[in-house]
Amino acid sequence: MNPDPLRVALIQHPCGADAAANRATTTAAIVTAAERGAKLVLLQELHTTPYFCQQEDTAGFDLAEPVPGPTTAWLAELSREHGLVIVGSLFERRDAGLYHNTAVVLDQGHLAGRYRKMHIPDDPGYHEKFYFTPGDLGFTPIDTSRGRLGVLVCWDQWFPEAARLMSLAGAQLLLYPTAIGWEPGDDDEEKQRQLDAWVTVQRGHAVANALPLLACNRSGFETHPDAAKEGIDFWGNSFVCGPQGEILARADASAETTVLVCEIDMARSEAVRRIWPFLRDRRIDAYDDLLLRYRDKDPAGE
Amino acid sequence: MNPDPLRVALIQHPCGADAAANRATTTAAIVTAAERGAKLVLLQELHTTPYFCQQEDTAGFDLAEPVPGPTTAWLAELSREHGLVIVGSLFERRDAGLYHNTAVVLDQGHLAGRYRKMHIPDDPGYHEKFYFTPGDLGFTPIDTSRGRLGVLVCWDQWFPEAARLMSLAGAQLLLYPTAIGWEPGDDDEEKQRQLDAWVTVQRGHAVANALPLLACNRSGFETHPDAAKEGIDFWGNSFVCGPQGEILARADASAETTVLVCEIDMARSEAVRRIWPFLRDRRIDAYDDLLLRYRDKDPAGE
Repeated sequence: MNPDPLRVALIQHPCGADAAANRATTTAAIVTAAERGAKLVLLQELHTTPYFCQQEDTAGFDLAEPVPGPTTAWLAELSREHGLVIVGSLFERRDAGLYHNTAVVLDQGHLAGRYRKMHIPDDPGYHEKFYFTPGDLGFTPIDTSRGRLGVLVCWDQWFPEAARLMSLAGAQLLLYPTAIGWEPGDDDEEKQRQLDAWVTVQRGHAVANALPLLACNRSGFETHPDAAKEGIDFWGNSFVCGPQGEILARADASAETTVLVCEIDMARSEAVRRIWPFLRDRRIDAYDDLLLRYRDKDPAGE
Repeated sequence: MNPDPLRVALIQHPCGADAAANRATTTAAIVTAAERGAKLVLLQELHTTPYFCQQEDTAGFDLAEPVPGPTTAWLAELSREHGLVIVGSLFERRDAGLYHNTAVVLDQGHLAGRYRKMHIPDDPGYHEKFYFTPGDLGFTPIDTSRGRLGVLVCWDQWFPEAARLMSLAGAQLLLYPTAIGWEPGDDDEEKQRQLDAWVTVQRGHAVANALPLLACNRSGFETHPDAAKEGIDFWGNSFVCGPQGEILARADASAETTVLVCEIDMARSEAVRRIWPFLRDRRIDAYDDLLLRYRDKDPAGE
């Protein structure tokens, strides 16, 4: 591993219907991040558009674009101009009827790689299985000038398998562009439990793999296209934690644009793995059932 | 799942060299737990002895016993008398030269099952690979009158695979008898990071599997047999969390015997799994590499 300290920035903001305005917000924030010394910038999930998955609407596919395409060209130029690695997120059109939720990595002017979201949610207000074909590129880190990045996307963050697979493939950082929020009708205790669960499960991945982790979430309230439904209050709270899960920086739920800058000690993972060498002790001889959907007591009854 | 609320007790205490005294402490605490309405009692790891793994000494094997044997007989009687499920922990002698770190489950007088610790640590002060043969019973929950218990032991708690396998096999609760502590020479910030990491990774398992989780750790300082070495300050902090990782009860690091009683809403897991159905979305078609030790870039170079 490259043990040099790495200064990172997470850019958290609300998104409106005007894609040009969203891009302008992101561009200004990337410039700020570079001025503050960041070398790696993580953007939130689908940062050029509102979260269009609140409903199923075939017109939503108009928002998709190819890779490479306009968004990668724009981010590539910013990454070149400012000497950055930028992790962006977009709605990828691969062919008619074949779309993905894709993270793209731009490294000083070049497209270093892409990751297609593997775990796709589908819940009221998050109709992602309608829009996004499950990723088919597996859990493969992307090599950049700033390290080997384990890029995952949003719903992936609830799956320890995803973080572990990136770790086993040599990732030095775990990164999650995200769009998650509260249902306004839930009570405050439930909202707090959900937010804490989201932070905790990801801090747990950091611990289990002794890797730093970055999660960048959108903020702001977005109405539902059907006015009778309640919309989503995106909870922000983007954060960076170290390889013992320790919080290094954390934003709040504010709808203001936030540039969260943080320096990561990249030598720390190796030190932690020397005292807690989990990879040494995995029982790979006894993990076969991880490949099952479920271990039914009576498989014949299925 | 049985949706009735379940009152549980965790018994945290220091251990001395006198096994009869340790058993008396545990017995009194189990009676207290029963008086306070607990139906399931979780004991800490190796609760009848000091943590003998601080050094490698063949005399340590004298502490081992068969299963069934004296400890299961003692706990079975307590479980019968008080109508309890008790999860205990002992050093199992299976044959000469073949020993395990084993959790045992007693259900109202009967040995309901055992779990042999699968992940075995080995660090300065924790020479477990000398004493404990890795478990060969796999990750199989144990059915009891109070539910299907995913019993794991200590070092297992750092491995998301273990919790997931228990969950896939239908566990309704995750339970961890534990013995973990601080090195007195570490600074306070490192101690805090280690304790937080320990709590966090387990809360993360609760979240990822939407299961309640119980972790019972020993407390108190135990000297090293070699006076030149510093010993272990067991950090207690036994806790219970719910299926969103929310803390329901937590002890402190006190060396006093603590009976931590807590009621768990066993209907909550199903409610949480309806809003966050992670088991539905696992990418079992893409998890093969979880069975690898590591995904080498150049396997031929191994």
